Amino acid sequence: MTEPLIAPPGLHDVIVADTEIGDVRGREGYYHYREHSAIELARTRSFEEVWYLFTHGRLPTAGDLSAFVDETSACRAIPDEVGAILTTAALLGGERESLAGLRTVLSAVGPATGARPLWDCDDDARRDQTIRVAALTPTVLAALHRIRSGEQPLQPRPDLGVAANWLYLVTGHVPGPAQVRAIEQYLIATIDHGFNASTFTARVIASTGADVYAAVCGAIGAFSGPLHGGAPDRALDALDEIAAHGDAHAWAREQVAAHRRIMGFGHAVYRTADPRSVMLREIALELGGPLVDRAVEAESAITEVLAEAHPDRPRHANVEFYAGVVMECCGVPRAMFTPTFAVSRTVGWCANVLEQARVRKIIRPAARYVGPAPSGR
Amino acid sequence: MTEPLIAPPGLHDVIVADTEIGDVRGREGYYHYREHSAIELARTRSFEEVWYLFTHGRLPTAGDLSAFVDETSACRAIPDEVGAILTTAALLGGERESLAGLRTVLSAVGPATGARPLWDCDDDARRDQTIRVAALTPTVLAALHRIRSGEQPLQPRPDLGVAANWLYLVTGHVPGPAQVRAIEQYLIATIDHGFNASTFTARVIASTGADVYAAVCGAIGAFSGPLHGGAPDRALDALDEIAAHGDAHAWAREQVAAHRRIMGFGHAVYRTADPRSVMLREIALELGGPLVDRAVEAESAITEVLAEAHPDRPRHANVEFYAGVVMECCGVPRAMFTPTFAVSRTVGWCANVLEQARVRKIIRPAARYVGPAPSGR
Repeated sequence: MTEPLIAPPGLHDVIVADTEIGDVRGREGYYHYREHSAIELARTRSFEEVWYLFTHGRLPTAGDLSAFVDETSACRAIPDEVGAILTTAALLGGERESLAGLRTVLSAVGPATGARPLWDCDDDARRDQTIRVAALTPTVLAALHRIRSGEQPLQPRPDLGVAANWLYLVTGHVPGPAQVRAIEQYLIATIDHGFNASTFTARVIASTGADVYAAVCGAIGAFSGPLHGGAPDRALDALDEIAAHGDAHAWAREQVAAHRRIMGFGHAVYRTADPRSVMLREIALELGGPLVDRAVEAESAITEVLAEAHPDRPRHANVEFYAGVVMECCGVPRAMFTPTFAVSRTVGWCANVLEQARVRKIIRPAARYVGPAPSGR
Repeated sequence: MTEPLIAPPGLHDVIVADTEIGDVRGREGYYHYREHSAIELARTRSFEEVWYLFTHGRLPTAGDLSAFVDETSACRAIPDEVGAILTTAALLGGERESLAGLRTVLSAVGPATGARPLWDCDDDARRDQTIRVAALTPTVLAALHRIRSGEQPLQPRPDLGVAANWLYLVTGHVPGPAQVRAIEQYLIATIDHGFNASTFTARVIASTGADVYAAVCGAIGAFSGPLHGGAPDRALDALDEIAAHGDAHAWAREQVAAHRRIMGFGHAVYRTADPRSVMLREIALELGGPLVDRAVEAESAITEVLAEAHPDRPRHANVEFYAGVVMECCGVPRAMFTPTFAVSRTVGWCANVLEQARVRKIIRPAARYVGPAPSGR
């Protein structure tokens, strides 16, 4: 019996799995999905093409894509059996509870659709389950939002792609092509990003052989944690504060002096600019408008102040900073910023679940007992 | 920047946390809660005393205990707001879906009761949330079962302890004191057992600062996985097969020859007899009856056959083997065996959530990309 290995706190930098899904190179400011630059995919591909890449491991041919679009849009409707759960879940808690509502509804969809444990399924059956979960997620999130707002949920439109359909379901109309494409690029760029806590949660649960819904419900819970990140609305709140204050430099200095964290800056992995932020900044500039001008000015002021305060470790705008700006420009209500992130991340979780299911080894670490010695031993 | 550490598959024997909750000593056939032998606690204490030990870190005084009994029994009722979700969830899927139903209902109770992220709460507020989750779990599981069986859910009885109340809620009556005490001992002995996958899941989610419901819903998902274990009904199914076959030795030899796993035997950690099984065997013998006689005979035959087949690593009866026998003797319907296990394990998950919340460090490991080299890099 070998000695147990003591992992650093939070399993930081501990490799717990091999993956073919992608990687984040923090020092290079680069990340990729399979063998493709994620930013390049966001610039040149549709969401459905990249979703296919995650699900099947390669980009689709034209024929593959057309079949996949049909297959996924057929899975968008919420099963009737969970209608009552959807309505009740929508009215529990406020707009902040979108993720809890999504978790409740998806938790019910599992048994309603006869989802079987991963280990009792072949790869095709597992893939079908993951497609349904990811196709349903935007429908459920938008329905929760509309019921909360006193409106009727809308039916998904099979003639629209994922991004346009999402904007339609949330706002009731389809904005112009520039807005749709901006949101599509955001969605593509946020499907996956290394072994964050929600992705890891999905994999731990999948490693027990449980079904896809069990894994995704767990991931949603981790994703809802304040430390996980993924709250682009907080970064936008900061822009509002700056506007009220009037001086971005002075505002940023006050935050630093008060040891308050400035939302939308700094990242656990990137030592350079966050490549997602660089792309979203360009998209925001193309969309244009006074909010974008304010954001660019604030970014420059905050980066400067943070570089003075932490010369050893400059902090750059992260994905959250321009994500909020882009979403606001596209008419997404602020309460739906984090849910928009969940729409794309669900595709990433699902790919991780599929990969983990093939490993067929339970993830079961150890702990070290540090309490008082047990009696009689 | 240090080199990343490559963990063994499944994080086997990797210490990912320090804990004061307890430990399992596989080679000694011993496990403890805090500094107390778990089996000793099961033999001498009430479930509520041990629940208090998990929640507060020490055994209660008489005054503590009486206040804790009042506090916990006041939390047993299902909030009215989730009544519709309970009814709908009960009718999705069959009896095998008890855990999915529990997950759906608890997922809704979080926002319904205004549960706040762990990191926005002090230790007392977190403790209150965990007590509610653990107090509600038996009520929800029993209500799901009764609705599925076409019966009205029963109201929890504050005059009954956890074990008696559980049996009452499930079966509609309170059996004799020997049966109640047998179930109580089973519940105490299964509250916690090291860093299994569900406990680890609860801790990963809690490490993001999410609320208790997020963590427990994730843990339930992991617990539902076929590899996790925790299905005492499968062991009892084996006893039925043996009865139909007529010869326990021959049946066991057939299983070994066909490379079929015999449920209820062998354990990932114990190299000796499972101490839970030893205790449950004694309890079963006290309860007595033809099923117990058959179980003892089968255990002896199976152990013998497995020792011949695997002389290097004998396999002993694990917790599942006699758990099913004891529950059957106490009138628990077979579909409620795994839910009974969930009733106690929730208390263990909650203690782990409380401990993890104090660490304030996100669990975020790494993965190693092993796919084709990304383009242009």
